[in-house]
Amino acid sequence: MTWLDVAADHPFGITNLPYGIFTTAAEPERRRVGVRVGDLVLDAAAAAHAADCEYAVPALSGPTLNPLLAAGKGAWDATRAWLVTVLTDPAYREAVEPHLIPLAEVTMHLPLEVADYVDFYASDNHAMNVGKIFRPDSPALPVNWKHLPIGYHGRAGTIVVSGTDIVRPSGQRKGPQDPAPVYGPSIRLDIEAELGYLVGGATTMGERVSVDEAADHIFGVVILNDWSARDIQAWEYVPLGPFLGKSFATSISAWVTPLAALDAARIALPGQDDPVPLPYLQSASGTGAFGLDVQVEVSLNGTVVSHPPYSTMYWSPAQMLAHMTVNGASLRAGDIYGSGTISGPEREQRGSFLELSWGGQEPFTLADGSTRSYLEDGDTVTMTAWAPGADGTRISLGEVSGTIRPTAPEA
Amino acid sequence: MTWLDVAADHPFGITNLPYGIFTTAAEPERRRVGVRVGDLVLDAAAAAHAADCEYAVPALSGPTLNPLLAAGKGAWDATRAWLVTVLTDPAYREAVEPHLIPLAEVTMHLPLEVADYVDFYASDNHAMNVGKIFRPDSPALPVNWKHLPIGYHGRAGTIVVSGTDIVRPSGQRKGPQDPAPVYGPSIRLDIEAELGYLVGGATTMGERVSVDEAADHIFGVVILNDWSARDIQAWEYVPLGPFLGKSFATSISAWVTPLAALDAARIALPGQDDPVPLPYLQSASGTGAFGLDVQVEVSLNGTVVSHPPYSTMYWSPAQMLAHMTVNGASLRAGDIYGSGTISGPEREQRGSFLELSWGGQEPFTLADGSTRSYLEDGDTVTMTAWAPGADGTRISLGEVSGTIRPTAPEA
Repeated sequence: MTWLDVAADHPFGITNLPYGIFTTAAEPERRRVGVRVGDLVLDAAAAAHAADCEYAVPALSGPTLNPLLAAGKGAWDATRAWLVTVLTDPAYREAVEPHLIPLAEVTMHLPLEVADYVDFYASDNHAMNVGKIFRPDSPALPVNWKHLPIGYHGRAGTIVVSGTDIVRPSGQRKGPQDPAPVYGPSIRLDIEAELGYLVGGATTMGERVSVDEAADHIFGVVILNDWSARDIQAWEYVPLGPFLGKSFATSISAWVTPLAALDAARIALPGQDDPVPLPYLQSASGTGAFGLDVQVEVSLNGTVVSHPPYSTMYWSPAQMLAHMTVNGASLRAGDIYGSGTISGPEREQRGSFLELSWGGQEPFTLADGSTRSYLEDGDTVTMTAWAPGADGTRISLGEVSGTIRPTAPEA
Repeated sequence: MTWLDVAADHPFGITNLPYGIFTTAAEPERRRVGVRVGDLVLDAAAAAHAADCEYAVPALSGPTLNPLLAAGKGAWDATRAWLVTVLTDPAYREAVEPHLIPLAEVTMHLPLEVADYVDFYASDNHAMNVGKIFRPDSPALPVNWKHLPIGYHGRAGTIVVSGTDIVRPSGQRKGPQDPAPVYGPSIRLDIEAELGYLVGGATTMGERVSVDEAADHIFGVVILNDWSARDIQAWEYVPLGPFLGKSFATSISAWVTPLAALDAARIALPGQDDPVPLPYLQSASGTGAFGLDVQVEVSLNGTVVSHPPYSTMYWSPAQMLAHMTVNGASLRAGDIYGSGTISGPEREQRGSFLELSWGGQEPFTLADGSTRSYLEDGDTVTMTAWAPGADGTRISLGEVSGTIRPTAPEA
């Protein structure tokens, strides 16, 4: 199948081919586009040059994926087809093989310069759990929840690559019994297991992207950990939404799985019959509002604590993009949007500690016998995910990992 | 005072010197930094080159103000001092005068590439008015309002320069009597009169900027119109805050008034005695949490409809910046944050139509006899502002203007 020595069942085989940005020890400042295949990284621009594919070189020269994101769907498809050709056709081996670097020899970086970051709230299981915990006297789902994919803008400048340490944030919190808010390091530091979608192919203000056009603007997928300080968030979020409880850090995987690699993972949504969404949130073709059969796994210090199933998400990534642009808001290459926490209906499928510990009332136990409701300093959270790939393969998404460091001392 | 023929009482005299990005008809693609003085625009990089101030050239070469924002407080002060020198000392006239261009011959552009955009809610008069209109059964001010400057992230990619037409957004709305949401162009399109602060001098994640350090990161001030679709906003904003009701467009003035030009406009805040904010929101020096004596004027189709006084704002711009970073969120050169709607205690001081028309119940009348509660297609909104400058002068901020265009037809 390929001249490379990559096993047919390798999670980063020829049906996957995620993109990232890497440097080497020899050239630590030169950030370049890499494509992972097996346990190797293809220096994409160098290979394109060597294989007489000069027209692809500018979009693949880095230091971020933004030029490739800007190039648009046609370029994404052409580049992927070219990669498969040169990595499988022995005629290209001599030109391309010198540009494969062992994974262990590269350092990965943030794959894009983030333009705008939007986070959605697309899991009904998650939204209902949060509603029961935060707003026990109200209906579990907000009245608008099934009519539109609720979302909000997050901080683009604090999106970091997997492996970046996360400093525990400080801020205000106020428990229901506290007479006044107090200041200090967050004592309810949490995770949110999400998928993030990288947007390319800019639009102009006033233009809308329909559900059926959306996939033409989704370059690829990362695993996203939306670190959340629940105590800060609970005190600040009424009436204008989450701010400092989220803005200190958001981690994404270094490897970006092309949406094209997830063609075999497209599935129907669980159902939107009651109510049926407004027409602008529907697919005219019938296939635009797809779900994704991606299985996520969350580990804390090596203990698997959750298995959130993306297949259970209520809103499609295409519906989120159509909603985000229905008011004429423009897209830029480098926009990224998160799905919101992925939670399945079962306890062990919940994608946040808030839910896993049910607001701290039901701590869970790790392999070392310790228990957790929220994160302690030194804790490491790792999220992985996999999905059906082409030709019966199973492909892995890039992992996202981060370790909690103590809050900075006060000046 | 200056070798230039600029009247001592000119609103853009030598004590003002705002920055912007301009092009000329001869070179429509070459965006450059301009400094306005009187009715002239100084081509700043060309003047620096001609006046043997080469070290300043890179920060002034454009195509945005971001390099100058990145250069930091020392560079801002040095550049401003240099500008005053070369525009007043006759020894520089020969070198500098050829680089002054009549204002009428330049086209102004968005002055910065926006990194992150945050919008605050710092006027107690505005927050109370909105509370009474939107949440009549709750306390007028949210319980957290006087403990922290409430804010949220907005869409950076749809910030546009004064003069850009605004397309009426479409979206979902649902009145209290509607059985289900309906889709269509917004019928409650509104303005918000704000000041916006341009941030420079980047910080790293985990770092905090204190109230007393904040002014070192505030390069300058623009007038900001936070266009708002109230019907879309009302239906979507619970629980995660405003999204599509705001994200379609935000207009800022082309001219950025240096914070240094507003030294004489610094005033004490109206008062924060009950409650006293937590220590991280206080100024250790006693002067860091300043207000600004800036008077704004809002016109609709030429009729002045409001005079919002910035002097009445509850939270200081320095407190907003300290709050925004207290959780360790980093700043980037090019961040911008808005004050939130400026509303004084009187009816004619309200900075939004929502408040001026009291939720549509009290339409106001224009000079042509027509009435408005919200914006109609073709309406033009213009905001201007002025403040005390140095040496007893009165300086103008750059104006921000925009005209409403009909919504785009459905595909």
